[in-house]
Amino acid sequence: MISTRFTAAFGVRHPVVCGGMTAVGTADLVAPVAEAGALGFLAALTQPTPEALVAEVERCRSMTDQPFGVNLTILPTARPVPYAEYRDAIVAAGVPVVETAGRNPAEHLPAFRAAGIKVIHKAVSVRHAVKAQSLGVDAVSVDGFEAAGHPGEDDVPGLVLFAAAARALDIPFIASGGLATGAGLVAALALGASAVNMGTRFVATAEAPVHQRVKDRIVANDERATALVFRKFANTARVALNDVSARIRRIEDERGTTFDDVAELASGARGRERVLAAGDVDGGMWWAGQSQGLIHDVPTVAELVDRLVGEAEELMARTLPGLVR
Amino acid sequence: MISTRFTAAFGVRHPVVCGGMTAVGTADLVAPVAEAGALGFLAALTQPTPEALVAEVERCRSMTDQPFGVNLTILPTARPVPYAEYRDAIVAAGVPVVETAGRNPAEHLPAFRAAGIKVIHKAVSVRHAVKAQSLGVDAVSVDGFEAAGHPGEDDVPGLVLFAAAARALDIPFIASGGLATGAGLVAALALGASAVNMGTRFVATAEAPVHQRVKDRIVANDERATALVFRKFANTARVALNDVSARIRRIEDERGTTFDDVAELASGARGRERVLAAGDVDGGMWWAGQSQGLIHDVPTVAELVDRLVGEAEELMARTLPGLVR
Repeated sequence: MISTRFTAAFGVRHPVVCGGMTAVGTADLVAPVAEAGALGFLAALTQPTPEALVAEVERCRSMTDQPFGVNLTILPTARPVPYAEYRDAIVAAGVPVVETAGRNPAEHLPAFRAAGIKVIHKAVSVRHAVKAQSLGVDAVSVDGFEAAGHPGEDDVPGLVLFAAAARALDIPFIASGGLATGAGLVAALALGASAVNMGTRFVATAEAPVHQRVKDRIVANDERATALVFRKFANTARVALNDVSARIRRIEDERGTTFDDVAELASGARGRERVLAAGDVDGGMWWAGQSQGLIHDVPTVAELVDRLVGEAEELMARTLPGLVR
Repeated sequence: MISTRFTAAFGVRHPVVCGGMTAVGTADLVAPVAEAGALGFLAALTQPTPEALVAEVERCRSMTDQPFGVNLTILPTARPVPYAEYRDAIVAAGVPVVETAGRNPAEHLPAFRAAGIKVIHKAVSVRHAVKAQSLGVDAVSVDGFEAAGHPGEDDVPGLVLFAAAARALDIPFIASGGLATGAGLVAALALGASAVNMGTRFVATAEAPVHQRVKDRIVANDERATALVFRKFANTARVALNDVSARIRRIEDERGTTFDDVAELASGARGRERVLAAGDVDGGMWWAGQSQGLIHDVPTVAELVDRLVGEAEELMARTLPGLVR
């Protein structure tokens, strides 16, 4: 067992988080993560309505008696999203912890606090993490340049970002991006983190609700097979390198490209659906982190968490102390 | 004391390297690095002639009886460089270890091997590190995306690159890029490295032969204040963000830009001289890694190495084992 400020504060066995992932963060994945002693998050907006989210929380609860949370990602979207209603559904569902991401979560914090729900905010820079701390969140999750999804525009990887965050923060933080192994967990703890978040690594598990071809592609891909798209629009996303993302990159390199030029190619939720559900891994844009270069199998969630923690314990209790004479 | 395959193979007290840095890697810095028990490298091509290099090795030897090496960086250059003559000077000077960088070092290896000189080759990707291993070098130094100078075109940071290198390599490797603290040393060792290389960190020491304003700027800069230039020409360099590098970036973003358009601005050795010797930190292009965000003082080399090793020992022997229950 590895005990940190994170395991103490959030009441989980291991300092390992499976943050909320759009279309992947359902009870199918989050319940086994909870059973394995890590902290998983249902993705609120993956559920079509606030009522469906409450039902998904109930479904997850029927599969595990261990704690889990809900992720609420607040982004500018084409169609308006009833964030306040999702927030109230989270409160009504009675989960112990929420992961907020995207915009400043300030307006939602009083409701969570009144309900005794702990809040972890995702940040991609030291200054945003410090800002979240000043709002009173319980922890921050700090995403480095390596991460899938939206790693920001600063391009500061975890080795530097986590060490800088450790110096700037008083609250515990979760290291995220580029992490898929027990060695990575130890590196993050050495740099000052209290836990690690893994996304791509949890997608390549038996229980993740995505097509087998997606998992196989993650295993096949090396650390170079991702692409940064939408950089031109200051909305950078790290995705799997495939025909679609390569075409988007080429179009972005052209002068005068607009977001509409690439949005059709990315094709949003439809493209993601084509990949994740139908397994057409070259037919749409999908998130993958550079950690895929460290992923070589598709274990069950329980096997994965046991392995991560076992490797980390071996390094921390034996290998590293054994180097000091 | 931290003992690794690196300290055993290279006969130094600490698993810490100060790799060869153009215009900075002189006896003034390398001798105190050796005295502190780390492995420093004179930059061969910073000396105007092979004879001057032999004299610089002698000068360094007059300042320390501890081992140090010479860096030989093989790059395409405007004026031809007599690499074979520098190589023969290195052999004649009798140093125990050479750091090669840039192009494939194969043609120089037989001479080094015949003289019993160990070779460390710098690589920026797993495949280049594996290639160097196949050539028979004794160790590789693996540079991540965070590093100053030429981190390559793959943009894979250390958290992922070091872990992937550990899996692919049999020979010991030195983690480089984004590292400036004892915590970074521990992270690198956890990820499978046998030592760390620090560049920017050693520039911000009392003994480094650069103007005080350069050291002060490194301390003042945060982890965001670097820029990647020459990306357009597949010759990416990470440099300090300043007026010059910002202008180069703007020009590179224009269609049809040629290398000549930016080379005049960068102004090569003249620009570097203006910065490093005259302290005009906004008047030329100069290398700085993202690790500058973790650098908050200008200690002596001995203070720095003692602190790095002390922090790492504390983490490895006490803090991390103490988290395992």
